[in-house]
Amino acid sequence: MSLLRFEVVHEYKAARLGRMWTPHGVIETPVFMPVGTQATLKSVLPRDIWDTGTRLMLSNAYHLYLRPGPRVVKEQGGLHKFMNWQGSLLTDSGGFQVMSLGHMVSLTDEGAVFRSHIDGSLVKFGPFESIQAQVDLGADIIMCFDQCPPYPVTEQGAMEAARRTLLWAKQARAMDIPEIQALFGIVQGSVYHGLRKRCALDMAELDFPGYAVGGLAVGEPKKEFYEILDLTAEYLPKDKPRYLMGVGHPYDLVEGVLAGVDMFDCVLPSRNARHGRAFTFQGSLNLKNAKYASDSAPIEEGCDCLACRGFSRSYIRHLFVAGESLAWTLVTIHNLRFFQRFMQKLASSIKDGTVQSYRDEIRRIYPVDMAEDADGERL
Amino acid sequence: MSLLRFEVVHEYKAARLGRMWTPHGVIETPVFMPVGTQATLKSVLPRDIWDTGTRLMLSNAYHLYLRPGPRVVKEQGGLHKFMNWQGSLLTDSGGFQVMSLGHMVSLTDEGAVFRSHIDGSLVKFGPFESIQAQVDLGADIIMCFDQCPPYPVTEQGAMEAARRTLLWAKQARAMDIPEIQALFGIVQGSVYHGLRKRCALDMAELDFPGYAVGGLAVGEPKKEFYEILDLTAEYLPKDKPRYLMGVGHPYDLVEGVLAGVDMFDCVLPSRNARHGRAFTFQGSLNLKNAKYASDSAPIEEGCDCLACRGFSRSYIRHLFVAGESLAWTLVTIHNLRFFQRFMQKLASSIKDGTVQSYRDEIRRIYPVDMAEDADGERL
Repeated sequence: MSLLRFEVVHEYKAARLGRMWTPHGVIETPVFMPVGTQATLKSVLPRDIWDTGTRLMLSNAYHLYLRPGPRVVKEQGGLHKFMNWQGSLLTDSGGFQVMSLGHMVSLTDEGAVFRSHIDGSLVKFGPFESIQAQVDLGADIIMCFDQCPPYPVTEQGAMEAARRTLLWAKQARAMDIPEIQALFGIVQGSVYHGLRKRCALDMAELDFPGYAVGGLAVGEPKKEFYEILDLTAEYLPKDKPRYLMGVGHPYDLVEGVLAGVDMFDCVLPSRNARHGRAFTFQGSLNLKNAKYASDSAPIEEGCDCLACRGFSRSYIRHLFVAGESLAWTLVTIHNLRFFQRFMQKLASSIKDGTVQSYRDEIRRIYPVDMAEDADGERL
Repeated sequence: MSLLRFEVVHEYKAARLGRMWTPHGVIETPVFMPVGTQATLKSVLPRDIWDTGTRLMLSNAYHLYLRPGPRVVKEQGGLHKFMNWQGSLLTDSGGFQVMSLGHMVSLTDEGAVFRSHIDGSLVKFGPFESIQAQVDLGADIIMCFDQCPPYPVTEQGAMEAARRTLLWAKQARAMDIPEIQALFGIVQGSVYHGLRKRCALDMAELDFPGYAVGGLAVGEPKKEFYEILDLTAEYLPKDKPRYLMGVGHPYDLVEGVLAGVDMFDCVLPSRNARHGRAFTFQGSLNLKNAKYASDSAPIEEGCDCLACRGFSRSYIRHLFVAGESLAWTLVTIHNLRFFQRFMQKLASSIKDGTVQSYRDEIRRIYPVDMAEDADGERL
């Protein structure tokens, strides 16, 4: 029985504000999780991640299984201690990464056999390996191994992936998992309404402490994405946290919250930062742009992050042009802080009942169909 | 008239402990300056540099002249504000870098014309450009433009470089420099005793607030290095700080201090860190080595740096193997702290009169002629 506790404290239509207790602290929801794939959020010290308001981070069982190996992490006292992160952790099962990064040799009910993207070696990774790895890593929240079909996929292909995902979920549910870890189920079903509904209901029946919506934001049209999201969330238990995987873009976070989602993760703030792209409430900026060469303003006026409190756009642009990694550090810190501030504003707008106008504002600043930043470049 | 003040507070033979006041704080000497070539100490935030005990950092007029340009830095409020460094700063004049990095087109009494190592563009950089750039940058200590001959060089070549260095020093001395900046002279003369002596005496006559020994540690045998260092320091004013440029190796710091040097700079702690090389009082370690894969010890037991307080060798090795830049950050922080602790221990040994035995200890741990680390690799 998992020790994870979740409480809904406020509702507005399908949207809700909540609180989640893990063995590593309390988390206000809706929550955005930055991604530390290889047991590090690239170029930022854990203390500085914490100072952005981040309390829950994601890491990847797939990557850590390949390198350094879950046994090494376990010997070092588990993932929290290994990466020196005092907050809460969630590990993804690796289902998505196996399909997108590995060079697949075979995929059966026993799992995947693939060639490692690191050294080409043959690796077997399935439902048992994934859960065992995640138990060794010791994250507060762990995920069932799933088969995430690409988009587009035939209905039959989607059904097969959903069947396997459910089978693996049942197998995982039967495994011996420490009570300090909460195992979440993942709903698949691609863009097929009936399949998504059945998957959600079947998964709910397994009585997980939380549920994820997987297989979205993999290339399907936005309209289908939002429809499937609404539908899937509707059939998931109201008293359990709901997690939309791999999302994302600020406007999609608004749509997710309105659909009743409590948790999100995405590489967007950190990956974009390393390319010079900063998020602000006036839109995003490309800090490599020559127009910032003499700009003494911080990335964003009024931002309280470490980067904005001490460094100008001019300096950060210089770091990018000079190829200095401190640029990644500073912009990543800013973007993490932006996402945390954004989730707080979103939560406030739900509490105040102003979420519809906030939704319009975010759509204006971060348009979905024309995903361009303030400098006219595609996000 | 420079506001810089320097006071010798303790002496042991030629070695001395001192205190230097700049407009940005007080600095205990002997002092080691880490190098932030491009207005950043690679991969470390200024606050974390400060926390290693560092109070004086070096940056390079040559690099900043080429990119982003001293005018940009001046517009941003000067180098301290630009890079958000609350401590003191010294800028090197660029003499050494012009010779070693630029593709020289001509070198005359007016300065160097060379092709930039960044974009191949033709650049004129001489005694006036260097001082003007350094005035714009606004470091607390600035350096005369000098001609640093390679090793080996004929006596005639060394004389010509020394003559030009003295000419440029006189020209710089006549320039209008803000009193918040202290201009140091640089002694050249290669390995020629008579020439070094004359250079030191001529430079001393110009009454600079401080003096550097340049043109050493450029490939000459250690024996000549130490001899020339002793001789040069002897002829420099006792009441002014003495700075040995580009040094360096722990044992050379001991020899430098025993010769009466007060200031040092070197890329060793930061550059080696990025290659996985950590300095400890038991010798240096190559943290990429497989033997650290499951090592739960910190880089160095008893070290109070941020890296040693939170992260294992196992984790840091993982970061290196996974190509994560946080590895550079952590090991650089450790190495900076090592150099600060090392300078403190060295100062204590001078105060206690135990410097000779400390010298032997450091020579054993960091042998000069067999510069290998504890893992048997060359430093």
